[in-house]
Amino acid sequence: MSHGSTARHEVLSVVFRVSPPAPDAPAELCVLLWQRALAPDRGAWALPGGTLGDDENLPDSARRQLAEKVDVREVRHLEQLSVFAEPGRVPGLRTIASTFLGLVPLVADPVLPVDTRWHPVSALPRTAFDHGTMVSHARTRLVAKLSYTNIAFALAPDEFTLSTLRDIYCAALGYQVDTTNLQRVLTRRGVIASTGRTAPPGPAGGRPATLYRFADARLRVTDEFAALKPPG
Amino acid sequence: MSHGSTARHEVLSVVFRVSPPAPDAPAELCVLLWQRALAPDRGAWALPGGTLGDDENLPDSARRQLAEKVDVREVRHLEQLSVFAEPGRVPGLRTIASTFLGLVPLVADPVLPVDTRWHPVSALPRTAFDHGTMVSHARTRLVAKLSYTNIAFALAPDEFTLSTLRDIYCAALGYQVDTTNLQRVLTRRGVIASTGRTAPPGPAGGRPATLYRFADARLRVTDEFAALKPPG
Repeated sequence: MSHGSTARHEVLSVVFRVSPPAPDAPAELCVLLWQRALAPDRGAWALPGGTLGDDENLPDSARRQLAEKVDVREVRHLEQLSVFAEPGRVPGLRTIASTFLGLVPLVADPVLPVDTRWHPVSALPRTAFDHGTMVSHARTRLVAKLSYTNIAFALAPDEFTLSTLRDIYCAALGYQVDTTNLQRVLTRRGVIASTGRTAPPGPAGGRPATLYRFADARLRVTDEFAALKPPG
Repeated sequence: MSHGSTARHEVLSVVFRVSPPAPDAPAELCVLLWQRALAPDRGAWALPGGTLGDDENLPDSARRQLAEKVDVREVRHLEQLSVFAEPGRVPGLRTIASTFLGLVPLVADPVLPVDTRWHPVSALPRTAFDHGTMVSHARTRLVAKLSYTNIAFALAPDEFTLSTLRDIYCAALGYQVDTTNLQRVLTRRGVIASTGRTAPPGPAGGRPATLYRFADARLRVTDEFAALKPPG
């Protein structure tokens, strides 16, 4: 085994957004992909990103490269995920990829370049290299973090009804959750709070729904063991 | 800014162990470091690791390089942590570091090379490059994971009294926790279970203490929001 040689380093971002529900389709978790126009893997869909610049750190590089595909002001949360370093994961020079998880709120609908689209995670087109694995890995991390952090703040509008929040959780988790349970757990743990306002009634009328907001707009663990809380 | 150049990639492991309490010293969280005999940063203490091999993936590289410093069979848990990629973080060729978190149980006391020692995290010697930051980052992650996973399984002996378990949590967290609360929370959540056996009485006599064990010897999130549990 030889040691000490160098590799290319790339930064790739898995950016998720829940698409709003339509009359004929439920809300869905979607990922931002662009279609490769050149070899290798021409026609396959790839994650936004590229080679780390000589004078860049990883988050700066992720934001710079994302900016070519999407308005980064719409990316509410961006965190380093993992490293993919299998030899031969892409053709040619050895390339090590650092992945980031990015989240865009449901209401945001940033203008995209012509080669770029939101694809439902449940029905991905042909993906380039190991990018499909990266999407699965990021989705698994998102699902785990939904269970012990407030990370859904970055997928939700600033204010939302419980019905919208349930749509977001169901889409992100990939299975049904009960609105009443969701409200009870997230309120008790201080993750969401009522704004005291109500949403305008929909076309069907009915009782106006309370608007909620996330208590924090930064990631935090919401569910520490009480016995392990630091003193003070 | 130039793009497309290459970098060296290294893999570094932050391996923690709780030292057993002694008559004159409490249990302490310690980290495995070796002292650099050569420039750069001669005499400073460094994390075990080195350059990623051409045909290696990251976990294989971490285990291979750890094996030079410590019996890797004693490393009960090893997981990828983060990437450190600031330009200029080490002198010379740009070097990107992937860090791993490794945990060794309290009872294990592996033979170490002469240049290698366990250092209390609360009183580190002069550390090389950005390795001190990596230790802090790893400790923060360990503390966070203690609050929502069963990760303490990898720091504990196979069977332990509640008093030993409290020593481990206090050392790893860096503050006091109450034995009764710890037992109540970890038992209720199915993290630990009684073995039905008791420890031999100590020199002071007294009632024999119940021996507990961790229910799982693999990392899992122990505290999902009940409302978000997948169906079935």
